[in-house]
Amino acid sequence: MSRVFNFSAGPAALPQSVLEQVRDEMLDWQGEGMSVMEMSHRGKAFVSILEQTEADLRELLAIPNNYKVLFLQGGASAQFSMVPMNLLKDKTNADYINTGSWSKKAIAEAKKYCEVNVAGGSADVNFSRVPTQQELQLDPQAAYLHFTSNNTIFGTEFHYLPESGDVPLVCDASSNILSKPIDVSKYGLIYAGAQKNIGPAGVTIVIVRDDLIGTVLPGTPTMFDYQPHADNDSCYNTPPTFGVYVAGLVFRKLLSEGGLAQIEARNVRQSETLYKMIDGNGFYDCPTEQASRSRMNVPFTLANAELDGLFLQEAGAAGLVTLKGHRSVGGMRASIYNAMPDEGIAALVSFMADFSSRHG
Amino acid sequence: MSRVFNFSAGPAALPQSVLEQVRDEMLDWQGEGMSVMEMSHRGKAFVSILEQTEADLRELLAIPNNYKVLFLQGGASAQFSMVPMNLLKDKTNADYINTGSWSKKAIAEAKKYCEVNVAGGSADVNFSRVPTQQELQLDPQAAYLHFTSNNTIFGTEFHYLPESGDVPLVCDASSNILSKPIDVSKYGLIYAGAQKNIGPAGVTIVIVRDDLIGTVLPGTPTMFDYQPHADNDSCYNTPPTFGVYVAGLVFRKLLSEGGLAQIEARNVRQSETLYKMIDGNGFYDCPTEQASRSRMNVPFTLANAELDGLFLQEAGAAGLVTLKGHRSVGGMRASIYNAMPDEGIAALVSFMADFSSRHG
Repeated sequence: MSRVFNFSAGPAALPQSVLEQVRDEMLDWQGEGMSVMEMSHRGKAFVSILEQTEADLRELLAIPNNYKVLFLQGGASAQFSMVPMNLLKDKTNADYINTGSWSKKAIAEAKKYCEVNVAGGSADVNFSRVPTQQELQLDPQAAYLHFTSNNTIFGTEFHYLPESGDVPLVCDASSNILSKPIDVSKYGLIYAGAQKNIGPAGVTIVIVRDDLIGTVLPGTPTMFDYQPHADNDSCYNTPPTFGVYVAGLVFRKLLSEGGLAQIEARNVRQSETLYKMIDGNGFYDCPTEQASRSRMNVPFTLANAELDGLFLQEAGAAGLVTLKGHRSVGGMRASIYNAMPDEGIAALVSFMADFSSRHG
Repeated sequence: MSRVFNFSAGPAALPQSVLEQVRDEMLDWQGEGMSVMEMSHRGKAFVSILEQTEADLRELLAIPNNYKVLFLQGGASAQFSMVPMNLLKDKTNADYINTGSWSKKAIAEAKKYCEVNVAGGSADVNFSRVPTQQELQLDPQAAYLHFTSNNTIFGTEFHYLPESGDVPLVCDASSNILSKPIDVSKYGLIYAGAQKNIGPAGVTIVIVRDDLIGTVLPGTPTMFDYQPHADNDSCYNTPPTFGVYVAGLVFRKLLSEGGLAQIEARNVRQSETLYKMIDGNGFYDCPTEQASRSRMNVPFTLANAELDGLFLQEAGAAGLVTLKGHRSVGGMRASIYNAMPDEGIAALVSFMADFSSRHG
């Protein structure tokens, strides 16, 4: 079989050119006579990969010097604990915005360590939008304000940056990091699991303002303390070396494509193409409110849910896979992260038009 | 450059045939039209990989049904916290055997959570051997007895299994797991970072008797509780999918080679060849006591330490790399995990003989 267009919500499609380079370097990375998987993380070769990867990420996001970049393990789920364990200090409460499943998990975990003030959310409308700044009820004494910048399941995204005054802003950016330029200096901490826009599952990136780390709650495991990771340039223990290498290749590719402004333009174009198709065709419907629509995850339903199975079957036969929606929303979901080529969007839109003309 | 013989202590050499398969499947895993890195961890394809990987590991180690097999993240360093957080229950003390750097790290972390009784060790002889059963001073009331089955830095290995009575035996087997058959039923918990005998860094395997999990210390992060990982077949959150896949290919290879009895025979043969060379040649010396010598990590010194640099340089030119010893021992260290082919041992021994004849 040839390559498919993979609309998986994560782990997700990677750029084909990156996979080709990984393939070509599998037995011998740049004349070292070994795979990146076989390299000592303390050796010159891997250290050069790690340094370049961090430098490229810093360039892509214009990360200020007073922010540490950490390559960790454990996914966003580990961050759900690490954030309160590291950022609470002598405070006992934090603000969280609840925009769906991932926010809820972050809130549940934080409640082990502090009082959580749900400063806003959209549970009342089944998370079909994100709250506006005016709707947020922020506590100026909170240790931090946590929000999920994109919700993969409900297909919503913040198109503004919550304003939290002097309270550090903490963002779970797992599913839209690197999809557009951001002003890192407005954040206290940004974290992201790699498996959507960065690379393989098993790498977690944390970007944290350096004055926010160094004090943890009693009983915090050393591995859950940002400080030793920062002090050892992400080599406090063996990092997920191969994942870091693949992430580095993705960063290089994004830079070669012109950086995040260019990437954002493509993401806007691709998502608008898809939403326009859905909105303009009476057969499909998108459950999310216009102003909150995600550029990364596009959920849509068919006029007749009994056709869902046939839609998925025919789409699969056409090389368009992993389109089934999450059970809490139903229907379909097309996840179109950075690695989705324009051809994938064109093929999906064309298939959807054809399917609706035959069954609408 | 062609492939080298890589004596790295970890991350370490992988079987070339495994790397070739990974390379060949990089853009299209078995007709799925995508890389394993791009697969949803909830999808049929990856679930089949995960199930086969676990089944093969169970077969290799003859793991009893009342033991859970978990594929986690964070390396042995995360287990240093997870073990006490999960196994202490209502006890407040645990026994640890101190055989060097990694044991010391495990002890330091455990001291955050309980009183540690160092039940034996070899600090007095710079960790050049492991203690005998008779030397251990065990507490029959300890929550568990922790030991490190192989010390990568000092090149020592337990060639007997510590007897701890009713106290659960916990083993950090990171650097010799799968090097020989073991009786899993004698252990309460075995853990191992993947990056020596299993696969790429970023996967940690935990094998735990099911009655030992389910109660954790207050404040334990959910990700550090074995139970949710066990309840969700290692998919509580996104596992390190690609690393699990590579580990699975390594397991298949070990099975195809006849299983761990065959692997052990090769490891015995290879390590004896190397130790015999060192012992029989007046130019080299091995700092570890005979009875405790590791089959995985072989440290040795040159008669004249001023030749260390030249030895490393000439070895490198001969395609024998990453032989530099750890700074706490000095000299050289040849790590010869499962993936080291006989040809690598032969090449090293031949080079060492030649070098000593020219400089001895």
